[in-house]
Amino acid sequence: MSKRNFIGVDLGGTNIKFGVVSEKGEVLYKGMRSAGKKLGREGILQNLNKAIQRCLIFADKKGMKICGIGVGSPGTVNLETGKIEGSCPNIPQLVNVNLKGWLSRFFQFPINVDNDANAMAWAEFKFGAAKGYKDVLCLTIGTGIGGGIILDGKLFHGSNFAGAEFGHMTICYDGRRCNCGSIGCLESYASATAMVKDTKRLLKKDKKSIIHKLIEGDLERLTTRVIFQAEKREDAVASRVINQTCVYLGAGIASAVNLLNPQIIVIGGGVSLGGQSFIDRIESQVKRKAFPSAAKSLKITRAELGNHAGFIGAALLVENGLSMTRQVR
Amino acid sequence: MSKRNFIGVDLGGTNIKFGVVSEKGEVLYKGMRSAGKKLGREGILQNLNKAIQRCLIFADKKGMKICGIGVGSPGTVNLETGKIEGSCPNIPQLVNVNLKGWLSRFFQFPINVDNDANAMAWAEFKFGAAKGYKDVLCLTIGTGIGGGIILDGKLFHGSNFAGAEFGHMTICYDGRRCNCGSIGCLESYASATAMVKDTKRLLKKDKKSIIHKLIEGDLERLTTRVIFQAEKREDAVASRVINQTCVYLGAGIASAVNLLNPQIIVIGGGVSLGGQSFIDRIESQVKRKAFPSAAKSLKITRAELGNHAGFIGAALLVENGLSMTRQVR
Repeated sequence: MSKRNFIGVDLGGTNIKFGVVSEKGEVLYKGMRSAGKKLGREGILQNLNKAIQRCLIFADKKGMKICGIGVGSPGTVNLETGKIEGSCPNIPQLVNVNLKGWLSRFFQFPINVDNDANAMAWAEFKFGAAKGYKDVLCLTIGTGIGGGIILDGKLFHGSNFAGAEFGHMTICYDGRRCNCGSIGCLESYASATAMVKDTKRLLKKDKKSIIHKLIEGDLERLTTRVIFQAEKREDAVASRVINQTCVYLGAGIASAVNLLNPQIIVIGGGVSLGGQSFIDRIESQVKRKAFPSAAKSLKITRAELGNHAGFIGAALLVENGLSMTRQVR
Repeated sequence: MSKRNFIGVDLGGTNIKFGVVSEKGEVLYKGMRSAGKKLGREGILQNLNKAIQRCLIFADKKGMKICGIGVGSPGTVNLETGKIEGSCPNIPQLVNVNLKGWLSRFFQFPINVDNDANAMAWAEFKFGAAKGYKDVLCLTIGTGIGGGIILDGKLFHGSNFAGAEFGHMTICYDGRRCNCGSIGCLESYASATAMVKDTKRLLKKDKKSIIHKLIEGDLERLTTRVIFQAEKREDAVASRVINQTCVYLGAGIASAVNLLNPQIIVIGGGVSLGGQSFIDRIESQVKRKAFPSAAKSLKITRAELGNHAGFIGAALLVENGLSMTRQVR
């Protein structure tokens, strides 16, 4: 057994995922509970508290030493103060909460709070699909599109900790209005939300699509899972939406490749349900659009750690956070 | 007088600009000569050679010690080998030339070759508009759109030295075809070339525009200088093109801001003829589109070193290149 273990928490809009993770990335314990979004700020924080306590009880039973607590949170996280800044549409109650400060009132451990997508990226970099690489872009495509950037083996944050917002790269300067207030953001074209919306629009015109049967006529039941299922059964609507999503993603990812020239791109989140065929089509679009010198040895691959990546990365970032705080001060 | 002086050369499609630069960024000598593009590969290299020799003669006369030679070249420059890789549309003859190797046959100095836009960015970072900042994006908008990225005080190159291609960020996934083979690149909307093209199109419909007079009816004489002149005289065509260019630039720059969250963006190149009013409009577009947390303390400003930035940066990068080579090996 490793000597150094950490508690990691992935604070999501719906659920809190958590676990005890060794420094080698082994998940020694894991759990999930509702975020209790409807309970308001205090309720969410109490649920976060309880998740950590469950990890501590486990560690105590096993006689395990815990070396720190890491939390991955939506929103822009100020790494110096531990405060959630900027917009945080999934859990708006967290804006302006000093999560690190709040947690340190209850737990006498080194505590690190970072953005949730950064945590996922870090997990994939340390022990997942991007292990062994040093320049990595990681995109999570689900309700929205988030991501993390690793440059020269270091997690990149930007000057205000607000970098890596892949979902808000413009792919159409006069296009769809995005929730963020801008126009033509990748997220409003290629997220799971956008795929479902586009499919619904096409279904209104196409009454023969197999999707109508799969959702038993109830458009509310439409998910990306259904869309990918329908494509396997050669449904034209599904195929059109998925291929177009790959065109959108290709445009956004190629932009990022032309700026950052990474070695590997890892794609995770709900949309990775589309499997290898989906990744292959994204890759083909990116390689068609990116500069040949930037794309020539670029690898595009699926995330490997799935739902666990968030809390694994949050746990592994504790040590990183400590050394960073030392540098900053 | 500084003890450490360097020769810097900016190898352009039309002209070679060169000079002797102190480690403090002072230009002690400068010159310019034709690149001799029509002469082919050997001719260009001979002109480069002569430019360097002129600097050496100057240094010799003044009893000045030269500590190295830096060259900024178009194209993707492999920093390890010194070879020009990838596309190099302005001087295609240079592709696959090992510029560093070729120069070291003639000159017994430390030699560094980097991309020309990287050199400009480095000069602005060290002694120009971005002095004192550590996270900097520098865009040069002229015939094309190039740029350089400085992160945490270091010039960023990417894993294949192919990063910072701002001109080839997609701002319209189904838009104009770009020279690079991709679709909807910023460069095909917002470069000087694109501005001139868009203006010509509008002039065909608008016979009252003052621009017709300014160019004496000869569309071949249309330049961005004329367009900016016409706007000062309240010409509607010019105004429309310039404002739309700011919308395009806003989309592309906001994408980069949402990814890289820099402290400052420096805009140089021919299009900076538009003056402060042009910069202000770009800034307003960027701040409207970028994430508030990424844009809140962002500064956008004009380049300060003008035409000299290329050779100043190339000269100053010599020391950087030497330390980098040591790291790589």
